[in-house]
Amino acid sequence: MARVVVDVMLKSEILDPQGKAVERAADRLGYSTIASVRQGKRFELQVDGPVDDAALASIHELAESLLANTVIEDFTVRVEDN
Amino acid sequence: MARVVVDVMLKSEILDPQGKAVERAADRLGYSTIASVRQGKRFELQVDGPVDDAALASIHELAESLLANTVIEDFTVRVEDN
Repeated sequence: MARVVVDVMLKSEILDPQGKAVERAADRLGYSTIASVRQGKRFELQVDGPVDDAALASIHELAESLLANTVIEDFTVRVEDN
Repeated sequence: MARVVVDVMLKSEILDPQGKAVERAADRLGYSTIASVRQGKRFELQVDGPVDDAALASIHELAESLLANTVIEDFTVRVEDN
């Protein structure tokens, strides 16, 4: 069984208050080398059968319709070794 | 400036209702090859200066104290090409 990872992040022009909160907390805790933080979502999908082009296209479609709000978010799909 | 990614996922023995909801929705929409879905968080950190062992150790510490709840979550830290 293969694992496909879909990463969903806010587009860079969209404000990310969660990331900002982490950024400020890190600064307060003394981690001064961290310039900025963005927070997003990671989905791990276990896929039955081979992950060929058709399977990836279908996952791409799923990500677009179900996992990401493409008005404000970008996503990437990649196959990961188990 | 280097980008370090921290992925935070629920431990495998912890129930993941968000992931389950996506899994059922995917099944309902006809994506039958998707056996299971787990949902987690992804943090993208922009780091000033070189990402050497000391910087990674400090990010590891930050992830442990601020980004993940290590009672129920696992995390991985990795450097990503910009």
